[in-house]
Amino acid sequence: MTVSYNLDVSSVSFFNFFRVLFRWRGSVWKSIWSELVIWLIFYYMVMVTYRFALNPEQREEVRKYIENLHENLDNCVPLTFMLAFFVTVIVDRWKNIFANIGFIENTALAIATLVRGTAPEVVLARRTIIRYLVLSQVLVFRDISLKVRRRFPNTDSIIKSGFLQEHEAIILDEVDCPYNKYWVPINWASAVLQKVFVEGKITAPPLFNAAWQEIKTFRSNMAILCNFDWVPIPLAYPQVIFVAVRFYFFMCLFTRQHLDMIDTRTIDYYFPILTVFQFIFFMGWMKVAEGLLNPLGEDDDDFECNFLIDKNISTGMAIVDATYDKFPEMKPDKFAE
Amino acid sequence: MTVSYNLDVSSVSFFNFFRVLFRWRGSVWKSIWSELVIWLIFYYMVMVTYRFALNPEQREEVRKYIENLHENLDNCVPLTFMLAFFVTVIVDRWKNIFANIGFIENTALAIATLVRGTAPEVVLARRTIIRYLVLSQVLVFRDISLKVRRRFPNTDSIIKSGFLQEHEAIILDEVDCPYNKYWVPINWASAVLQKVFVEGKITAPPLFNAAWQEIKTFRSNMAILCNFDWVPIPLAYPQVIFVAVRFYFFMCLFTRQHLDMIDTRTIDYYFPILTVFQFIFFMGWMKVAEGLLNPLGEDDDDFECNFLIDKNISTGMAIVDATYDKFPEMKPDKFAE
Amino acid sequence: MTVSYNLDVSSVSFFNFFRVLFRWRGSVWKSIWSELVIWLIFYYMVMVTYRFALNPEQREEVRKYIENLHENLDNCVPLTFMLAFFVTVIVDRWKNIFANIGFIENTALAIATLVRGTAPEVVLARRTIIRYLVLSQVLVFRDISLKVRRRFPNTDSIIKSGFLQEHEAIILDEVDCPYNKYWVPINWASAVLQKVFVEGKITAPPLFNAAWQEIKTFRSNMAILCNFDWVPIPLAYPQVIFVAVRFYFFMCLFTRQHLDMIDTRTIDYYFPILTVFQFIFFMGWMKVAEGLLNPLGEDDDDFECNFLIDKNISTGMAIVDATYDKFPEMKPDKFAE
Amino acid sequence: MTVSYNLDVSSVSFFNFFRVLFRWRGSVWKSIWSELVIWLIFYYMVMVTYRFALNPEQREEVRKYIENLHENLDNCVPLTFMLAFFVTVIVDRWKNIFANIGFIENTALAIATLVRGTAPEVVLARRTIIRYLVLSQVLVFRDISLKVRRRFPNTDSIIKSGFLQEHEAIILDEVDCPYNKYWVPINWASAVLQKVFVEGKITAPPLFNAAWQEIKTFRSNMAILCNFDWVPIPLAYPQVIFVAVRFYFFMCLFTRQHLDMIDTRTIDYYFPILTVFQFIFFMGWMKVAEGLLNPLGEDDDDFECNFLIDKNISTGMAIVDATYDKFPEMKPDKFAE
Amino acid sequence: MTVSYNLDVSSVSFFNFFRVLFRWRGSVWKSIWSELVIWLIFYYMVMVTYRFALNPEQREEVRKYIENLHENLDNCVPLTFMLAFFVTVIVDRWKNIFANIGFIENTALAIATLVRGTAPEVVLARRTIIRYLVLSQVLVFRDISLKVRRRFPNTDSIIKSGFLQEHEAIILDEVDCPYNKYWVPINWASAVLQKVFVEGKITAPPLFNAAWQEIKTFRSNMAILCNFDWVPIPLAYPQVIFVAVRFYFFMCLFTRQHLDMIDTRTIDYYFPILTVFQFIFFMGWMKVAEGLLNPLGEDDDDFECNFLIDKNISTGMAIVDATYDKFPEMKPDKFAE
Repeated sequence: MTVSYNLDVSSVSFFNFFRVLFRWRGSVWKSIWSELVIWLIFYYMVMVTYRFALNPEQREEVRKYIENLHENLDNCVPLTFMLAFFVTVIVDRWKNIFANIGFIENTALAIATLVRGTAPEVVLARRTIIRYLVLSQVLVFRDISLKVRRRFPNTDSIIKSGFLQEHEAIILDEVDCPYNKYWVPINWASAVLQKVFVEGKITAPPLFNAAWQEIKTFRSNMAILCNFDWVPIPLAYPQVIFVAVRFYFFMCLFTRQHLDMIDTRTIDYYFPILTVFQFIFFMGWMKVAEGLLNPLGEDDDDFECNFLIDKNISTGMAIVDATYDKFPEMKPDKFAE
Repeated sequence: MTVSYNLDVSSVSFFNFFRVLFRWRGSVWKSIWSELVIWLIFYYMVMVTYRFALNPEQREEVRKYIENLHENLDNCVPLTFMLAFFVTVIVDRWKNIFANIGFIENTALAIATLVRGTAPEVVLARRTIIRYLVLSQVLVFRDISLKVRRRFPNTDSIIKSGFLQEHEAIILDEVDCPYNKYWVPINWASAVLQKVFVEGKITAPPLFNAAWQEIKTFRSNMAILCNFDWVPIPLAYPQVIFVAVRFYFFMCLFTRQHLDMIDTRTIDYYFPILTVFQFIFFMGWMKVAEGLLNPLGEDDDDFECNFLIDKNISTGMAIVDATYDKFPEMKPDKFAE
Repeated sequence: MTVSYNLDVSSVSFFNFFRVLFRWRGSVWKSIWSELVIWLIFYYMVMVTYRFALNPEQREEVRKYIENLHENLDNCVPLTFMLAFFVTVIVDRWKNIFANIGFIENTALAIATLVRGTAPEVVLARRTIIRYLVLSQVLVFRDISLKVRRRFPNTDSIIKSGFLQEHEAIILDEVDCPYNKYWVPINWASAVLQKVFVEGKITAPPLFNAAWQEIKTFRSNMAILCNFDWVPIPLAYPQVIFVAVRFYFFMCLFTRQHLDMIDTRTIDYYFPILTVFQFIFFMGWMKVAEGLLNPLGEDDDDFECNFLIDKNISTGMAIVDATYDKFPEMKPDKFAE
Repeated sequence: MTVSYNLDVSSVSFFNFFRVLFRWRGSVWKSIWSELVIWLIFYYMVMVTYRFALNPEQREEVRKYIENLHENLDNCVPLTFMLAFFVTVIVDRWKNIFANIGFIENTALAIATLVRGTAPEVVLARRTIIRYLVLSQVLVFRDISLKVRRRFPNTDSIIKSGFLQEHEAIILDEVDCPYNKYWVPINWASAVLQKVFVEGKITAPPLFNAAWQEIKTFRSNMAILCNFDWVPIPLAYPQVIFVAVRFYFFMCLFTRQHLDMIDTRTIDYYFPILTVFQFIFFMGWMKVAEGLLNPLGEDDDDFECNFLIDKNISTGMAIVDATYDKFPEMKPDKFAE
Repeated sequence: MTVSYNLDVSSVSFFNFFRVLFRWRGSVWKSIWSELVIWLIFYYMVMVTYRFALNPEQREEVRKYIENLHENLDNCVPLTFMLAFFVTVIVDRWKNIFANIGFIENTALAIATLVRGTAPEVVLARRTIIRYLVLSQVLVFRDISLKVRRRFPNTDSIIKSGFLQEHEAIILDEVDCPYNKYWVPINWASAVLQKVFVEGKITAPPLFNAAWQEIKTFRSNMAILCNFDWVPIPLAYPQVIFVAVRFYFFMCLFTRQHLDMIDTRTIDYYFPILTVFQFIFFMGWMKVAEGLLNPLGEDDDDFECNFLIDKNISTGMAIVDATYDKFPEMKPDKFAE
């Protein structure tokens, strides 16, 4: 589920800042606490080993190793740069996916406005077109979102939910195409539209074209989602980033140890406070990237595909049937002084 | 209210710089002064404690702690990078929201040009379509802008303002859809358009289509606003940034203290001038980001939604009614030598 | 006036570099020389004070102050980062403004191609539509460009220039709309177009629609210009940047002094050459940003709005009247071997 | 073949990270292991030479050389910056190429919806249009993708595959145009579309136009692919980047040697662990750029052009023939409570 | 001429790297070698002066000067940042220019598909429209590309080449417009299109509109090219960048000298290898920017405008005449199993 916090930031103030800060769902705290705990456990294991398991001579040697690492680490792992640019690429992709997630309203308004008539078969045609579009969305979402897949594990579950009917499932199954079949319901919707056009329910070719363009736009959205799924960011890019961050903090297990056994009073003798905050900032930043990498997944912040499907079918049906041609009597308004 | 300063920067000069500098509304000074004061209070509290509450031995220890922090702080908190890239993402989003805020002029011009007639019922139809579009905008803005919500706290207030009429409110209420209903007035507008088309006030299908496309564009704008509200930047991203900045300046309370009690004459013995300016630059930069994060909020720089609603209804009505088909007698112009 | 230098850079060579370098109009030299001179005056004033007004003891103290500042200055003012990202945002905005500045050619070609006839009243209708569009541009430019405002300080000056006629000015004045009225001439143009359509000068609805779309596009350009003027980059952003740059170089007045009175031979004893170049680069970079911030202003590089208005009316009239339907006799071409 | 890993990142967790990490195909490991091995071989050759082939005096001199290099290397080669910005440019280009790779669905749906009839010659016309479009894609892909070139080394192989027929090959060959001929089959498709329009299979001009626009869009995609191939990123840009990275790591062969013969216990006496990781991060990042530079090539991550051709012909034919006008009987749906 | 190297990078491998590396045309080597040689000459002149013309005392002084410079240079000239962001702006502009360079295919296909008939006068009309569009391109290119200007130094040369005919030249000359006249041939093309529409060669208004839209798109491309030429990147921006790079390497002439006369064995005593490579990377990077700044110029990498003109006229004529309505007999294809 997406996590909304807009009201918390409606104006810039110190308290709004805290309201944003102390949210848990979708927060940076939630996404990193477990790894931070693990990291701290390892950190203290290294600390205990260093302080109690080694004799002074060994300590001296280990210290030398580590100081050598410490000096060169930041130079060798350009973390900030890599993360900053990677996040930019990922955010751009995330925006594009969201822009093509598929909202039914435009298509439904077109169908309602352009396919005229209240006879049962026309109403049914309008409803069916909407259903077919959402069905297509269900088919696509099943391939790219685990949550939707879990809701519709098989064809039966889609039939049960009402998006597909049994005789339709058979026809869908019979389509002989070894590739993705999400376009089949779009095809049906086009054919239904063509049928009502021939029957005169759409009064002119330009209007038929307008309605069809809306169906096409919806399909293009679905196709773009499939394509984003087909061609992800080249694997090596996230690999490089993710390994770099983890490698850096793995090395920090050693390089951020307080190695001087005598000077026991400096602040990081017991707790590496700066490193912990650095961990929060860099891991948090990377978690943002990880979370956005597959925005149709199961994170708190991922798009709510199931919600969208329900909203689309409900709103779509309301537009093409329940509220069809129902508009209030026109009365003079107040603005004409 | 947005803050305009274009005339002040119409040419590059030293004085224009000062004119921009010393504005208060929407300025960086206004957005940070309170936090700067709070920070300074804490800074002096730490200073007083360090100088007067500690004995020399404790001071020495504390000094060690702090110097250790000071050395590593900048390395651990990559503030510049994080802010720079975050602001870029936020500015992009802000631009998109503004581009879809919903201006009525195109739709109104289309309605006025394509729906013909001066009979009262045609005029009323044109006015009603405009009113429905702005009504839809009111419904959307109420959900995403606190200011508009405050102006229209309930349906009654919308009725009183004239955007909605009582019998319309009842129909709107009866629409059975558990989701956002901002599309209902758009639906009404489409139906009215369809009605005048059937009655022959729009003379050809392509023109009906052109008018309807404008209504659709306006609706798409509203839908995009809703979507930006539905799916914000993932919470963890601003959290990481905002915490990093605050954490950094919290640490500065200590690391920027003048710790050497003997050398009392260096410039920061009494006032941390550089740190104060650093505070201004970084906090100011972050405030820009905070302010842009929800541009429909209540900051000085946020979009003036209420103004836009009034402008839309006023301009829209002027276009479709008051100035309908009124154009000056055509006379030869001067440019034909 | 924009400054063109494309021919100077048509190929990459050392001499082309110099040709670009030594131009004055719109150059970095022109934009910064005055501030550089002022800065140098202050610099030498500080220098003289330090060297001659202070006794050695005071000098020592001041020296301590300044060295402390010097050490921390670069760390506290992340100039490069702030400028780089700010310039990116500004360049993007500048591009968008230019893309919507409003060229008449497409609309004029549409009007000439689609509104048919050589009868005087049709010719006048075509001319009038063009004039109304440019008039709308004049109205918009007056609000956002000081240069255009100076050319057309009041309605009379617009009437004198021929863009507006007296009886039109009266009607424009009578329009009851408390907001920007730049859309009124667009409204007139639409009405004229509608009139010639009804009179059969445009032969089919799709062609009427095509012509009207062009008028709409021109109006959308004007609306976008108004919006960019209405909602600038939030004030705090340029403030932070401009203050940071000035603050940095103010501090440099002190920190870049040659403080060692004995070692009189190092290069900056008499002239701070590196700092002067740094001043040129950073101030020059910032001046680019300042110049682009309001591209409709009065800098050398700003868009030539008055030129554009003249070009639009002249080209537009040539297209819809002088060259209307005049095309050469068609003869076989050479390319058919 | 593109490498898909979306399911592995559907939620952010520690284990998902490892799943992404340990993939081989398309991974950073696969792309750099060979160069890393070569680098290590040279590294140890330098090491052995230094430690055993030189006498202490020579070693001292060499050491001096190298330490001098070491100090200045990072300053002289701004690797991170160059790579970060170059990757940004390349990723943008890669996205554009993918967006124009050419999917047949929209065109096929348009042809199926707008060209009506089940008579054999109409079906054949629809099939032929689809085949011509994919044929055009084959011609373009042969020029820009080595894999497709290998599949279709000559015209005969295209004929054998069925995309082209023998009498068509002759006509294609006879076209007298010294430039790329990929547009010829598009021309044929347009002519076929025109023919069925004249025969009344498309019922109205707006619908003919709609169908033709889809053919045009497909052609524009192909043209953009050709243009990206015609005008690559200027050669000097990748050269600078690629040389910089290789030069840097060539220098590291020397500068990262452990030169102190006495202190044999520091961590890099036997294995330059940090440098190896730095190699992985920077080379990996550069390999991402190299891989994206020509996304139609033969890397693991490159677009699967042959797959796309097969999918297009198969899906296209299914849409315009097999499933033409076949839609399920409409029955009331469940959503009407 | 653009330099193509796609085949060299079709897969990522070590040898492909070398193939890209050792190309000369359009390479970084070609663009910087002359300046590198000049720089080295000056470098050795400074070296010789320092080592042989000065006495030890002077040397010591000079050394002091230079070391002072050396310490502060990198801090004062943020070369990497400035170049990186400037190149980003320039690459974006370069992409936009290329996207609007004007390809005739879409327009030609529209004319061929929509203007029907094989009568000589219809064929001539189609040919003439294409010729006029390319003529417009020639007029625009003459203004913005030195190469095209050289090919068409005057109107006579255009007439000789066949793009313009003598009687057309006279009419073009008579057009009374003090501004750019590239739109006149577009006007002619529109008028010819209008003529054939009136004569019934285009069968319906929507198709006439479709054809006209393509002509308009071609004109818009030309207009955008003119605008990019009219309003370049503000001069001060490239000036700042170009001066910064040159100033930096001018200073390096001194600061990178080996100043220590005793320690004659460090690597840069005779040859400043790191500085040379730094020169290559930074100058190479800047040359990329210089080359892209005016992509219609005469560099190896610049767009081949003359080639494009020839390709456009040749392909355009082939589409509207030679291959008009010639499509192969339709036969059943192999894909119908």
